[in-house]
Amino acid sequence: MTTHDRGARANSPVRRRQTGSALTQQFSDYLRARRSEIEQALAHALPAPPQCPPVLATAMNYSLSAGGKRLRPVLCLAAADAVGPHRSFAMPAACALELIHTYSLIHDDLPAMDNDSLRRGRPTLHVVAGDGMAILAGDGLLTEAFALLARVPATAGEEIRLRHLRVISVIADAAGSMGMVGGQAIDLSCTNPDPSGQRAAPLDAEGLRLMHGRKTGALIRASAVAGAIMGGGADSTISSIDAAAAEFGLAFQIVDDILDVEGVSTELGKTPGKDAASGKPTYPALYGLAKARQMAADCLERAETDLRSAGLADSWLMEIGRWIVHRSS
Amino acid sequence: MTTHDRGARANSPVRRRQTGSALTQQFSDYLRARRSEIEQALAHALPAPPQCPPVLATAMNYSLSAGGKRLRPVLCLAAADAVGPHRSFAMPAACALELIHTYSLIHDDLPAMDNDSLRRGRPTLHVVAGDGMAILAGDGLLTEAFALLARVPATAGEEIRLRHLRVISVIADAAGSMGMVGGQAIDLSCTNPDPSGQRAAPLDAEGLRLMHGRKTGALIRASAVAGAIMGGGADSTISSIDAAAAEFGLAFQIVDDILDVEGVSTELGKTPGKDAASGKPTYPALYGLAKARQMAADCLERAETDLRSAGLADSWLMEIGRWIVHRSS
Repeated sequence: MTTHDRGARANSPVRRRQTGSALTQQFSDYLRARRSEIEQALAHALPAPPQCPPVLATAMNYSLSAGGKRLRPVLCLAAADAVGPHRSFAMPAACALELIHTYSLIHDDLPAMDNDSLRRGRPTLHVVAGDGMAILAGDGLLTEAFALLARVPATAGEEIRLRHLRVISVIADAAGSMGMVGGQAIDLSCTNPDPSGQRAAPLDAEGLRLMHGRKTGALIRASAVAGAIMGGGADSTISSIDAAAAEFGLAFQIVDDILDVEGVSTELGKTPGKDAASGKPTYPALYGLAKARQMAADCLERAETDLRSAGLADSWLMEIGRWIVHRSS
Repeated sequence: MTTHDRGARANSPVRRRQTGSALTQQFSDYLRARRSEIEQALAHALPAPPQCPPVLATAMNYSLSAGGKRLRPVLCLAAADAVGPHRSFAMPAACALELIHTYSLIHDDLPAMDNDSLRRGRPTLHVVAGDGMAILAGDGLLTEAFALLARVPATAGEEIRLRHLRVISVIADAAGSMGMVGGQAIDLSCTNPDPSGQRAAPLDAEGLRLMHGRKTGALIRASAVAGAIMGGGADSTISSIDAAAAEFGLAFQIVDDILDVEGVSTELGKTPGKDAASGKPTYPALYGLAKARQMAADCLERAETDLRSAGLADSWLMEIGRWIVHRSS
């Protein structure tokens, strides 16, 4: 364990296992504090007019300010907390991850993709701004994520700059054709016919796991890894956090599918039952609800083993895993 | 002038001014050699299956391998040549710039944007792969550009790594909401009505210049600047190259508009007369053909003054400017 890792002990929550879906008071406070920091940072993360044309700034901010769980940036900051005392070093990465997540939702909701008209409880961007401006707003958010990561403060030393470069590599690989965009492409080719009317065969259980591992899991993993890198974690600690975050990512998708079956539009903030109706394979459809819930719980257990190996079983990171599994929206 | 700059003299072409549209033999050879290097590097620039899903790899490569002038990567390599003997250091940036340019064409051609069905002499990607896959291929190319820039060889020293970080910042700013995407948004809002039927007022001459400065000029400038940074140029030299490349960018757009009026589909590789037909303001429409041609020539003259101030008036960079103005496609 590095000096930083030892220093992080002060940030660890009191060990208190959850038995149900309620969050501990300490974790609720932690979540509220981190989200507040994130909202403040996001408010200054994008270029403003006149540098950015007003019509584009309005479109990007419409989606970025729509709220949501802010899971990826919270995870990023919690990973930085787990490895050292310099959480603020991870804030540019935390914001960049939310910009990328937001762009992916905008493009995913387009008529040419999932054709969803409701997101985070509001009309989707293409409904209010048109398909073309929604495509551009997504492009802008994705590009600004990398601009933000590369815009290192003049006071930063070489070591911090090199951490930024490493994090750009991690996030770009996770968001690109091997990761999120690749997962979207697999998903699209199974659900939407191409111009010749062809459609890929439906995914089996293993194919579903691999698709979600790219589409959702890769960026969740990268969120934790980026936070651990920016926080100055040792390579072995980063590896353990990466392994735990992979479990979080799988659990997240299983729970998302369960909520899609059970949820109501107002709580979920998007059209419920849509995945099942579109014939997309889901975990509850493949395994049944009870087994799917057990699979999510198993993910949590494996993540705890991973984090324990780095002495981080009592970190906020682990609490985030419990939140992912027990959330109701 | 730095040691690197002096070293670059060996790469300078024999001084020989062009009087017409023909390229000098030496410059034709230089262009052919650089393009050959670029094609080889581009063939390995993207993740291949199985890391990248085959359906996405096919879509990305369809557009990337369609040819084109490769102006941005050639400009990047020529700027590296102008400042030092390490042209190969600039190749990742050269490839990244072409990935970004290609993504911008794919998204720009979509029905929700310019709705063009022909590009580089072939059906556009959305025609052959569908709108959704075209959006994802664009997203993938943009993200892989940053992945490529951040994937620094293990043998590279800290100084080279820091150049990569600086170049990521330059390219992201040029490609993002202050640059290319911002220009596209202005263009779109003037040509396509939003969902409420509103359309921005047509651009006047100054608005047109500013829009093109973002939409086309920013990435052309960034191409030259990225090459000069990767090649190890001094800051004052980089500034002169930046100023010259801004002139090249404006000249490029003026000549593009002239070719759009004069061109035929087979030479231009895209639907000619389209801009004029769509009511977009163009330089020939605003100023007449003769004045537009003179404006392009004036850009070239100012660029030569900029490059001369850095002792680079005889560089391949200047020949690229002449090529931009005298090209026929």
